[in-house]
Amino acid sequence: MNDSLNKVTELLRELPGIGPRQARRLSFWFMRKDARWVETFARSILEARKGIHTCPMCTRLYEAGPHDSGTCRTCEDTSRDAGLLLIVEKDVDLENIERTGTYRGLYFVLGGTTGPLDKQPEKHIRIDGLIRRLREPATPVREVIFALSATTEGEDTAAYVRERIERTLPQHTFKLSELGRGLSTGTELEYVDADTMRSALERRT
Amino acid sequence: MNDSLNKVTELLRELPGIGPRQARRLSFWFMRKDARWVETFARSILEARKGIHTCPMCTRLYEAGPHDSGTCRTCEDTSRDAGLLLIVEKDVDLENIERTGTYRGLYFVLGGTTGPLDKQPEKHIRIDGLIRRLREPATPVREVIFALSATTEGEDTAAYVRERIERTLPQHTFKLSELGRGLSTGTELEYVDADTMRSALERRT
Amino acid sequence: MNDSLNKVTELLRELPGIGPRQARRLSFWFMRKDARWVETFARSILEARKGIHTCPMCTRLYEAGPHDSGTCRTCEDTSRDAGLLLIVEKDVDLENIERTGTYRGLYFVLGGTTGPLDKQPEKHIRIDGLIRRLREPATPVREVIFALSATTEGEDTAAYVRERIERTLPQHTFKLSELGRGLSTGTELEYVDADTMRSALERRT
Amino acid sequence: MNDSLNKVTELLRELPGIGPRQARRLSFWFMRKDARWVETFARSILEARKGIHTCPMCTRLYEAGPHDSGTCRTCEDTSRDAGLLLIVEKDVDLENIERTGTYRGLYFVLGGTTGPLDKQPEKHIRIDGLIRRLREPATPVREVIFALSATTEGEDTAAYVRERIERTLPQHTFKLSELGRGLSTGTELEYVDADTMRSALERRT
Repeated sequence: MNDSLNKVTELLRELPGIGPRQARRLSFWFMRKDARWVETFARSILEARKGIHTCPMCTRLYEAGPHDSGTCRTCEDTSRDAGLLLIVEKDVDLENIERTGTYRGLYFVLGGTTGPLDKQPEKHIRIDGLIRRLREPATPVREVIFALSATTEGEDTAAYVRERIERTLPQHTFKLSELGRGLSTGTELEYVDADTMRSALERRT
Repeated sequence: MNDSLNKVTELLRELPGIGPRQARRLSFWFMRKDARWVETFARSILEARKGIHTCPMCTRLYEAGPHDSGTCRTCEDTSRDAGLLLIVEKDVDLENIERTGTYRGLYFVLGGTTGPLDKQPEKHIRIDGLIRRLREPATPVREVIFALSATTEGEDTAAYVRERIERTLPQHTFKLSELGRGLSTGTELEYVDADTMRSALERRT
Repeated sequence: MNDSLNKVTELLRELPGIGPRQARRLSFWFMRKDARWVETFARSILEARKGIHTCPMCTRLYEAGPHDSGTCRTCEDTSRDAGLLLIVEKDVDLENIERTGTYRGLYFVLGGTTGPLDKQPEKHIRIDGLIRRLREPATPVREVIFALSATTEGEDTAAYVRERIERTLPQHTFKLSELGRGLSTGTELEYVDADTMRSALERRT
Repeated sequence: MNDSLNKVTELLRELPGIGPRQARRLSFWFMRKDARWVETFARSILEARKGIHTCPMCTRLYEAGPHDSGTCRTCEDTSRDAGLLLIVEKDVDLENIERTGTYRGLYFVLGGTTGPLDKQPEKHIRIDGLIRRLREPATPVREVIFALSATTEGEDTAAYVRERIERTLPQHTFKLSELGRGLSTGTELEYVDADTMRSALERRT
């Protein structure tokens, strides 16, 4: 009976994208790996968690330095356009968009997706945090840009958030927009779908 | 010695997307298939070719009916906007765009792609036919829209065609545009590239 | 209406392994390909069919030369061991086994597979031809070797053929065997299934 | 600067089968996951490591219970045939073979693979432990069975171990064998390679 090993395997299965066989292989790997490495690994996670704060502005995770201002570096960067707020699903989406170097406004990380069958959207996306963020008089937002994936989940989430904004902040003065649809890198015309083609035609340049 | 079967296999290997093993399997399949079917197949191709004309306007292949006007049904459809000319690579691209039902102008089928290393672009794309088509005073074009794949090949081909048009028809009055880039159906923000993100942001709606 | 082109597309869809989009692309390809090529292609198939005979011994297709003996070169090769008869599903299986150069007996090509739900196995496999072949007094078979795929279909087919042989030729003196199971090239022990492992253990060397 | 998060990402990249994007996603996941879960996870690994011993007989990892005999349950199982020793590469290979329920002898886990370019095979496989195990007079081995993957790495490793055994234990009385090659579940005759075909023919049953 490998009870304690089975326990590790079970916990590893909770990691996103790890199947049962890989979880088992990883369990053994953790058992055979140098003890110091495993301790360093565990400590690194626990310590990183201590230093990692949730930015109250965008809700992303960021590492608070010795002179932490209380918000993440993007939110406190006064050279960025505080009138633009890009709504993304996940921390890695935000990181990837930053990597493209194409956006100079601020962000808000929803933390998940929702859909028409979701009875408790507040549990899956930080909608209340977003509403609070949009109410803040200090940083008036001119435009909220939905940058969610071009999938049913992304569209359902955007629809829900739009509706909640319109209902909760009926007098808002900011614009609501979403990323343009069109041909993305690699799209072949032989396989293009109607939605993408329609957008690509409308937004031809 | 299966010389005549090897010959069939070799010819089948010329078909686009058919590898050596599939070519061999198809060869045997053709040998075992009912003789009448094979004759019907061969005759259907040869007869279709007789009835299929190249439209002098768009260079697509079309089936000439008993009252053939000399051009394809799309080119002769007076309800379509003859001021718009969409440049596509292949017949199947045109068919797919028609299937999306999103475009109401006319087409021109280049027939291939070209690139900076191509010494004889005229052999790979119907550039001369396009220039002739754009010179036609009878159907004045307001806008030429490039609908090539969002790949290096597609971009190189568009660049070459643009340059040839500007050089050969320096006094043209039509606009040159290309399909809008952006998120296409299925694009996930975690993986979006810089070109797509930039376009999606610029063309947000 | 591209009726004649649609006809070609429909016929191409009957080819094994060709999907709807590839069939469409191939249709246009056949229309644009040089007329002489298409005629050569059609003629090659029709002519190959004339020269291709079905070997009455093994039922494979073979090309009859000017001095055709009436059977294929493998069946007429007296250096081969006529006491061994390897049962395969398809012509390409036979060709592939010959390519490995590991077998020196004769063959019989079943032409397909059957299974427990198949009401008319005679329509899918040449079982009657096999029984006739095994009855032939001129070439007495010592061993019938099933070389069918290690899949449910292959096993069901072998089971059916075995049962038919035992029932129809109850007094036969040949042995019935099948290819050994075990690790095949590339098998990893982490993923090995029970059947393969059991055989691999039993037949360890 | 997300230095501590980058550290976690780097460490996660060392896990087998985890690429850079997945490592990043997992890093954020660890940061957002409930703190108690992360502590439980880290503690489970560290505690499992304490309870997990390396079996001195087979070198596999096993969980020592309260009445630990000093060897793993398989090695101490007197109903198993101690005369058979199956050589595997990894713990998960052993687990998978046990799952198939087809083997009733003992095991030895090499811990890796080696090859002709490996200058220090002792660093990658537990060859010295194997030699010691084979020398043990208490449990005389009748047969050593190589159960390594049917790949170049597996074959190179088996060749090295064989050679080392013959050289170090020239007077050994046990047999050396390896798992039988042949068709494994799913193998299709159309694609079978010469090695597999040859073995499948030789070991037909």
